[in-house]
Amino acid sequence: MKVLVFGGDGFCGWPTSLHLSDKGHEVVIVDNLSRRAIDSELDAQSLTPICGIDERLQCWNSMAATPLRFALLDLARDYDGLVALLSEEQPDAVVHFAEQRAAPYSMKSAAHRRYSVDNNLTGTHNLLCAVAELGLDTHVVHLGTMGVYGYGAGGAVIPEGYLKVQVRGADGALEEREILHPCDPGSIYHMTKCQDQMFFYYYNKNFGLRVTDLHQGIVWGTQTDQTGKDARLVNRFDYDGDYGTVLNRFVMQAAVGHPLTVHGTGEQTRAFIHIQDTVRCVELALTNPPAYGERVRIFNQATETHRLIDLAHQIRALTGADISFAANPRLEARANTLAIENTGLQRFGWDPITLSDGLLNEVHAIARHHKHRCDLSKIPCASTWWNASREEEPADIRVA
Amino acid sequence: MKVLVFGGDGFCGWPTSLHLSDKGHEVVIVDNLSRRAIDSELDAQSLTPICGIDERLQCWNSMAATPLRFALLDLARDYDGLVALLSEEQPDAVVHFAEQRAAPYSMKSAAHRRYSVDNNLTGTHNLLCAVAELGLDTHVVHLGTMGVYGYGAGGAVIPEGYLKVQVRGADGALEEREILHPCDPGSIYHMTKCQDQMFFYYYNKNFGLRVTDLHQGIVWGTQTDQTGKDARLVNRFDYDGDYGTVLNRFVMQAAVGHPLTVHGTGEQTRAFIHIQDTVRCVELALTNPPAYGERVRIFNQATETHRLIDLAHQIRALTGADISFAANPRLEARANTLAIENTGLQRFGWDPITLSDGLLNEVHAIARHHKHRCDLSKIPCASTWWNASREEEPADIRVA
Repeated sequence: MKVLVFGGDGFCGWPTSLHLSDKGHEVVIVDNLSRRAIDSELDAQSLTPICGIDERLQCWNSMAATPLRFALLDLARDYDGLVALLSEEQPDAVVHFAEQRAAPYSMKSAAHRRYSVDNNLTGTHNLLCAVAELGLDTHVVHLGTMGVYGYGAGGAVIPEGYLKVQVRGADGALEEREILHPCDPGSIYHMTKCQDQMFFYYYNKNFGLRVTDLHQGIVWGTQTDQTGKDARLVNRFDYDGDYGTVLNRFVMQAAVGHPLTVHGTGEQTRAFIHIQDTVRCVELALTNPPAYGERVRIFNQATETHRLIDLAHQIRALTGADISFAANPRLEARANTLAIENTGLQRFGWDPITLSDGLLNEVHAIARHHKHRCDLSKIPCASTWWNASREEEPADIRVA
Repeated sequence: MKVLVFGGDGFCGWPTSLHLSDKGHEVVIVDNLSRRAIDSELDAQSLTPICGIDERLQCWNSMAATPLRFALLDLARDYDGLVALLSEEQPDAVVHFAEQRAAPYSMKSAAHRRYSVDNNLTGTHNLLCAVAELGLDTHVVHLGTMGVYGYGAGGAVIPEGYLKVQVRGADGALEEREILHPCDPGSIYHMTKCQDQMFFYYYNKNFGLRVTDLHQGIVWGTQTDQTGKDARLVNRFDYDGDYGTVLNRFVMQAAVGHPLTVHGTGEQTRAFIHIQDTVRCVELALTNPPAYGERVRIFNQATETHRLIDLAHQIRALTGADISFAANPRLEARANTLAIENTGLQRFGWDPITLSDGLLNEVHAIARHHKHRCDLSKIPCASTWWNASREEEPADIRVA
């Protein structure tokens, strides 16, 4: 099939584009290269030396059966260009990674909050609006986040997007309804993903768009089968305080002999997925589109859940690194439990890769190999979640 | 108190500003005059001859104890101007009417969909972001819509914003939770109001902003105690297919001898409120702000519910007008029931005005008085809800 990958130059988008190309799909990467611009803004480069987009493409196309193409386009700013591109390409599907994806970055300042809201909401709406306007039969696959569910409620297993509830009807009797799972975002970034769900709901209901929303866990790892084929294809590895996600950051800290910095108690539980599974799951979502008239399909694209402190201990056991505790810059519960349903993608054949010492060692080897590129000053998280006008970390927050 | 009224030149904003000023509050209208620009775009003027903003203000200030002021500002486009204004004024509260408010207008074309999304979401976020950035203790009162709840579910009374549900917990036993009422928007306009709720939820949770969201029914009537004091203060009266709301449109059609056009079966049930109650309710919300730390307060600002066909019959009985049925341009259930909870504002002293022949006659007299200004060609609704690529009205739609 022909697939446009919006945000196809980023951490998840690039390996996904290569994987889809490798599987024989015709792929066009659509990207404004904003992630590279943010590298410059933060003065924090990927630990792995990533090539420019042209060199990446040349390298891949020297070995690919179908050439991977690239269109430079800002999804949120160039609606006319988007309409022209979709009209020309008439894709079977689009994958939408083109959102600002770092929670800490979205919380740095008012300007960063406004950029994240504008880029993510306008971009997502432009995409849906253009598909509807052109009357295309294009399946929209979107990368959501497990964070839409929130990390407050303890106990019950988090279903895939829809929650069965009992509500009192007109006659006072309880009746069952299935509703979109209530949202509880933890950052401006997460808030935009909650709002995206309403775009999907409405464009599906009113215009019949077929949409799959993949609520992804925290991605760890760097390389996939395809990005490992040539040094010029290497995927990015973020370790800075804004874009570095927790597990990769721990591994990186171990590689450079820095203590593993646990924010808060470490008793926060999160969902995780390896980057190799990200690309496999996206392809499974693409090759198994919803039926016409089907509501928005939502899957939890996450393999397993772990407490952050347990991950730190596992990496300490593997590497001998120290653990240090830092004040939590986020407003979140000090501890939470998290259990998730994730059978939807498994029904299409997904066999999840779980956290193992072998894979952790592979990431550790990459981090060690490139550790001379690490700027230690970029590791601490520079943004705090609460209002600058408050003097201290709030003693407690309300969690729904 | 000092109140900034965003959108204070519009149909609800103008009479609200006068009412607040009359009650002794210091009021600054903040508006980009976009509603007047849309009049020009649609070539459809208010039935009542509204004055320019300067003449309006001069007239009111010639009789007001505290002068009403005006700031020309585009909430969605001029964030720096907004920050400067809020910083200078340090208002006790803001009332946010500054959204594109017509569902049919939001459905006219891709450009109108994109404008409505951008204007409403960017504007709302800018306001919250600026209040948080400045660390202001400003109560934000927002005009939402009863349409966020949807018009699909039959039977149960719609609560004020939050719904009690029973959910299975980790141990399999049902436990009660109170959630934000699930959303089911019927248009792009309604969708933005659903997404606004997530802005409020997050800014309240993370930054402690005090927010009251008023889910208003369809407003009818034109004049309030203040707008009736001088012809130069007259409120707008929209009768065109995009901005004319159903009850006012029926009265207007009767005044010019046009049949009352019922879209679809007329068995759609909606909630209504008179404009005089709009302004009273907003003041009650302002003078009864939420406590610090309280979640977003949500009220249903609507008096009563009626089937559209019953309203048509009532106006026929009053005026002798004919009733004609037209194809429904909206994708909505052919019939629905609707019962609402609306005691929240009544607890603050609101005594609702219900639909009466007396008040209908007053509106009818205004419509008759200005009927020479009516352009009959502007009455039909020009936008359809479904995809232009479909050839016929869909036989049925899914309603949650």
